Amino acid sequence: MQIKDIGEFGLIERFARKIKNSRSVIVGSGDDCAVLTFNRQYYQLFTCDMLIEGVDFLSSANPYLVGRKAIAVSLSDIAACAGKPMHAVISLGVPKKSTLKYCDRLFKGMNDIAKQYGVNIVGGDISHSEKTVIDVSMLGLVEKKYLVLRSGAKKGDIIFVSGCLGGSILDKHLKFTPRLKEARFLVENFKIHSMIDISDGLLADLGHILKASGTGGLIFAPRVPISKVASGLNDALASGEDFELLFTVSPVEANRFFSDKRAKNFQAIGEIIEKKQGLKLINQSGKEIKISGKGYQHF
Amino acid sequence: MQIKDIGEFGLIERFARKIKNSRSVIVGSGDDCAVLTFNRQYYQLFTCDMLIEGVDFLSSANPYLVGRKAIAVSLSDIAACAGKPMHAVISLGVPKKSTLKYCDRLFKGMNDIAKQYGVNIVGGDISHSEKTVIDVSMLGLVEKKYLVLRSGAKKGDIIFVSGCLGGSILDKHLKFTPRLKEARFLVENFKIHSMIDISDGLLADLGHILKASGTGGLIFAPRVPISKVASGLNDALASGEDFELLFTVSPVEANRFFSDKRAKNFQAIGEIIEKKQGLKLINQSGKEIKISGKGYQHF
Repeated sequence: MQIKDIGEFGLIERFARKIKNSRSVIVGSGDDCAVLTFNRQYYQLFTCDMLIEGVDFLSSANPYLVGRKAIAVSLSDIAACAGKPMHAVISLGVPKKSTLKYCDRLFKGMNDIAKQYGVNIVGGDISHSEKTVIDVSMLGLVEKKYLVLRSGAKKGDIIFVSGCLGGSILDKHLKFTPRLKEARFLVENFKIHSMIDISDGLLADLGHILKASGTGGLIFAPRVPISKVASGLNDALASGEDFELLFTVSPVEANRFFSDKRAKNFQAIGEIIEKKQGLKLINQSGKEIKISGKGYQHF
Repeated sequence: MQIKDIGEFGLIERFARKIKNSRSVIVGSGDDCAVLTFNRQYYQLFTCDMLIEGVDFLSSANPYLVGRKAIAVSLSDIAACAGKPMHAVISLGVPKKSTLKYCDRLFKGMNDIAKQYGVNIVGGDISHSEKTVIDVSMLGLVEKKYLVLRSGAKKGDIIFVSGCLGGSILDKHLKFTPRLKEARFLVENFKIHSMIDISDGLLADLGHILKASGTGGLIFAPRVPISKVASGLNDALASGEDFELLFTVSPVEANRFFSDKRAKNFQAIGEIIEKKQGLKLINQSGKEIKISGKGYQHF
């Protein structure tokens, strides 16, 4: 049996089932960040993301932007839990023949965005490897009252998304803005039931919320905000690395969104429904559209 | 200019110079772990280590032991700071064609040693890659009074090492015992001035202590405990991945070591001297021996 027979998420679940954690772990594997005890007011968030040359970026990509992305994807995970980023360690593997200039650009990309978001780079590990590989682990803090997980969606919730989706592969995946400010605005002004960042694609990541929450979901296709550079609806629904926020709120909170000017960049795109109804996509006339894409899977 | 022109440690220093951290960082890049504020009693330790197929293990290596090593190297970093390991996240890149059995063995190796040392595996990231790559980031805690760094060595200190050195490449690098218990014994019973784990080789790692402490060091060659499987003194001095503890204590504390039966596994091998004298190796008759090896460097 090979990994592709159970897929990336099947493998993660297979591992997760074998893990037994102590009570100091509030949430282990299965959300955007692990949630750990810290003090009375805060939980600590802990996340890691690995970027590999040829998978997450091309060898021809601008190394400054590659370094930037390596930090930004972890910032996006912290944002998905509504946290504030604090510290990062970086493991870097680079080919022996790499120039100092290449490494300097990689590091400047990391260091600049770390500074921008107040993240301390506190350590790392440097190794030689055939292809460039960067793994960033990040710590953050979130007030207990503000923590948002994937698992909190409730039947009747309205599904929202920040920004526009699709076509990220062209450019945005190297230049996106991690939605830290937006996530903090959300939790400080609204009661958010569930949240995730869109890294695998809208449908795949909504699927993660639905699975964690034990619900179904309905997407109203005409409401999905499609990026100008996307090739169409399918691209917006299924392609990964938009790094926008996908979240759900009660209908009452949704009404507050519609009347709040500061919330105009969040688009209502659907509704949480019963689990047995699964994930549905409907068109302008209320007819169900067959879902073709499943989002990015590594295997 | 290529990386080999400045070397692995040159590159780390080059990056470290450009980092500015906030006051919540007690020690950033440059020790075995980053040291972060946590609460009144404890500091938090944060470390990462990346293992790459073909560099840190052969593709023919037992995947269970590879997984074990991936966790053990971070445990050894926590030990070097006299801490207690707490939580880990794992980034794993494996070839698409990998069997499920291979992944299961890798994970079991990680999970078993994590359980053994009370470490919670709280999250991770799985990706496909050409060669297997595993990056583990680990958090630990250390009582403020027990924290030991590389930088605390003082002139006149006696240099000690745990266990035997050399020949690790044959077997030990995949099966070593991280010296957590020994490190805790040391700080709970003695005043330890400086400590590091031997990952790059005795001379290289002593070099890290000397540089961080602004001192020189003298090694008395006949006292270096050479492993039965080592090829000789040079091997014990220069080959990496022994993962033993190297530490320094005052002469008064050293006398307490010599009279304490529980400390019989720690061997005095030298003395901290003035910085201007550098790193010296002397033989039975007190003559200086030329130092040939420099330890493992990635570039």
